[in-house]
Amino acid sequence: MSKVVTEKVGKFTQHYPKLTAIVTASAQGKDNAMTAAWHSSISINPPLYGVSISPQRFTYQLITDSKEFGLNFVPWGKASLAAWVGGTSGREIDKFQKFNMEREKPLRTKVPILKDAYAAYECKLVDSKTYGDHVWFVGEIVAVHFVEEAFSSEKILDLDKIKPLLYLGLEGFYATTDKDSLQYIKRGD
Amino acid sequence: MSKVVTEKVGKFTQHYPKLTAIVTASAQGKDNAMTAAWHSSISINPPLYGVSISPQRFTYQLITDSKEFGLNFVPWGKASLAAWVGGTSGREIDKFQKFNMEREKPLRTKVPILKDAYAAYECKLVDSKTYGDHVWFVGEIVAVHFVEEAFSSEKILDLDKIKPLLYLGLEGFYATTDKDSLQYIKRGD
Repeated sequence: MSKVVTEKVGKFTQHYPKLTAIVTASAQGKDNAMTAAWHSSISINPPLYGVSISPQRFTYQLITDSKEFGLNFVPWGKASLAAWVGGTSGREIDKFQKFNMEREKPLRTKVPILKDAYAAYECKLVDSKTYGDHVWFVGEIVAVHFVEEAFSSEKILDLDKIKPLLYLGLEGFYATTDKDSLQYIKRGD
Repeated sequence: MSKVVTEKVGKFTQHYPKLTAIVTASAQGKDNAMTAAWHSSISINPPLYGVSISPQRFTYQLITDSKEFGLNFVPWGKASLAAWVGGTSGREIDKFQKFNMEREKPLRTKVPILKDAYAAYECKLVDSKTYGDHVWFVGEIVAVHFVEEAFSSEKILDLDKIKPLLYLGLEGFYATTDKDSLQYIKRGD
């Protein structure tokens, strides 16, 4: 197959699929949620996680004010919820009410935790830095929520039990994993 | 299903699967490659991409010296290559020779581009910052390589043609997407 090699980077969506995260925050008496595909763990000790958010987003303001954020991972069956949350603004509507999103009690912060999430992280903001057109928020994970039966004893996702929600990099396009594709390869030679 | 809520964060692998990247760099007359799961796009304009690397890695030194890095995305069928590359150090062996990795010519940098990659980004380093036990390298994408037939006209990956390599967060465990799970959901209400 032939390869294109170009300096025309454009929207560069070749690095998808990416696990969809629903980022939550609470401030000014308001809870909000947004979808994010630009996120990554960045340190184990301390446990740090980063998420890139446009300063134009309402959630940007809530995180800046409260110094906290949540990351919620919902299954493939909730793709519609992710699309709806991603297609609306908390400046205009209360997404929790509009989309009937139930909340669970956070442990160490005030960020909303989604009942629909099979796993969630509560984060306390430790740094924020502008990179290009987005701001990189770094939080220390202070609490973890997860459905016990969804993970192995070593905390890896059981693909038989949960279909993770993978975003393809173009609005509205989602897929999930093939549970029969799991393979274990011994490292080294 | 019951949820565990805990302050014991541990290795926090609940946010996997994650697309595997093979990070490449060249300096001191040496090419090297390492696997990375901690990476994300962080800005569209300019096109910026971040990757989190331990300062103990040989690739950390090569990126620090050369101010360039490459991100290579190989298919699920190359899981063994990813595991081998991840389980060895470029301080001890020439991974390109050892694992018969063929290189293609970069366009704007000197980073090795893997022939096995269905897509790759060439990045010029614009920032590095220590977060916890890793360093967050941010690069501007200056060139993109991709197999034309593997992507739609809107540059989303064709899951019929390429099985992306998803890492489960525990050494050696990989899976891929279910091509029949692709769904399109119209955003908004």
